[in-house]
Amino acid sequence: MIKVAILGYGNIGKAAEQAIMQAPDMELVGIFHHNDSIDSIQADVVLISTPTREVQHFAQSLLLRGISTIDSFDIHTEIYSHMQVLKPIAMQHQAVSIISAGWDPGTDSLIRAIMLAMTPEGQTYTNFGPGRSMGHTVAAKAIEGVKDAVSITIPIGEGKHQRDVYVQLEEGEDWQMVRQRIINDDYFAHDPINVIPVDSVQPFDTHGHGVLIQRQGVASGISDQQLSFSMTINNPALTAQVMVACARAAVRMKASQQYGAFTTIHIPPIYFLPLDEEQAIKTLV
Amino acid sequence: MIKVAILGYGNIGKAAEQAIMQAPDMELVGIFHHNDSIDSIQADVVLISTPTREVQHFAQSLLLRGISTIDSFDIHTEIYSHMQVLKPIAMQHQAVSIISAGWDPGTDSLIRAIMLAMTPEGQTYTNFGPGRSMGHTVAAKAIEGVKDAVSITIPIGEGKHQRDVYVQLEEGEDWQMVRQRIINDDYFAHDPINVIPVDSVQPFDTHGHGVLIQRQGVASGISDQQLSFSMTINNPALTAQVMVACARAAVRMKASQQYGAFTTIHIPPIYFLPLDEEQAIKTLV
Repeated sequence: MIKVAILGYGNIGKAAEQAIMQAPDMELVGIFHHNDSIDSIQADVVLISTPTREVQHFAQSLLLRGISTIDSFDIHTEIYSHMQVLKPIAMQHQAVSIISAGWDPGTDSLIRAIMLAMTPEGQTYTNFGPGRSMGHTVAAKAIEGVKDAVSITIPIGEGKHQRDVYVQLEEGEDWQMVRQRIINDDYFAHDPINVIPVDSVQPFDTHGHGVLIQRQGVASGISDQQLSFSMTINNPALTAQVMVACARAAVRMKASQQYGAFTTIHIPPIYFLPLDEEQAIKTLV
Repeated sequence: MIKVAILGYGNIGKAAEQAIMQAPDMELVGIFHHNDSIDSIQADVVLISTPTREVQHFAQSLLLRGISTIDSFDIHTEIYSHMQVLKPIAMQHQAVSIISAGWDPGTDSLIRAIMLAMTPEGQTYTNFGPGRSMGHTVAAKAIEGVKDAVSITIPIGEGKHQRDVYVQLEEGEDWQMVRQRIINDDYFAHDPINVIPVDSVQPFDTHGHGVLIQRQGVASGISDQQLSFSMTINNPALTAQVMVACARAAVRMKASQQYGAFTTIHIPPIYFLPLDEEQAIKTLV
């Protein structure tokens, strides 16, 4: 049995608890809050389900002790440098860190990679939502002057999105200043945005989300190959389930002495599954 | 540059020629017909695009000489044993064989594996077509008494299919006997089938095909996660392009001393792509 601990007990941590309990090959050995001391964690793998900006610090501490880590670090522009930071530590301490393991980044990254392999020339569009973005919601909540927030992602076509950020202000805060802080945050700086003041974010606080990935491309010189992946999902549930699949993969990478930091596209997909090789080939290939 | 040869110059071999010529990291070093002597082939990787039933024989001969092979062996029930035959030869001669590399088996296998990782409980349906099945068409053509044939796959829902096999008889053959041979062939024995006599198969001989893979499953204990992948494609073009992506992957597997026989789900998807790691992460993850 793979000994798995959870660090961070928000929406994803709670979902991960369910996913681990239902995994036939895993044992949940502890749940730690992000303000606990983590020196006492003993596990094969730790799922780090803290806010993204705290992930790297915790991953470093755990990898230094030779404990493998899974995170769902979701700032796309910083994934490569996040990997570069964790890689040497993981290699030196013979551990495995699988980063950005959720659905986007995560399984959507896999889909985009496979679509590109199938059609080396072409255009891929990733259209999210409508749905509540966990990463953007956490980022908005962390901004000074924000009492509570929900960030909804609205697809506006061809892979472009609008962010509708519903914000409940801290008492006595200046709306325009808080609004400006949100607009300037790196999470929000790249998309059209509506920042909307509300008395309560409750009505907007759903877990439903989805994505439509479309590619039109060329295979073997022949154009008009049309590829499409779509899903409607419960956001924390799917994120946590992908992290759990990656926890299994981390153990297998480590068993084959492939230490280091990896994204989902570095992992043989068979490693994600609680099946032996014969079963996997006979049921999936 | 990766030196790639093509063995078998039918629809897939011709498409592979185009795909190799457009690959930035590959050089086409030879095209061999399936009745040529293959002892003279010098290449890093050979794409074996012969009829499926000839694949294993050619792969064995090439692997024995340390030449990596890619095939699109497509008899689903025999993939595992095909791998077991090639694996020790590839390992002994420090070569890599990627088998069943097309779209199904192949990239569809990857999609099914990823969907299973996302939702460990649930039901996956793979619905093909309508379209001309290359494997079934070749199998039908090989049957005694058949002058020419085309097998069309018709989806009938929930992953079930009907085969419409259009057959032009050899002169003097008995229709009922030929029909029975087709029905009894392992390729056709598992699905409802219509065997239809025609004067010419030309009107049915198209390259358009497609698939719809649907999964409804449970993630982290929460049901009703809906996943869907679909595509409409040119069948030999996509098959060949996936083989070319696997040729690249085979070279990378070999470079990291991972010798043996593998299916697409054994391969880190990043290996399929002509991108360096930083580019791949920044554009796909």
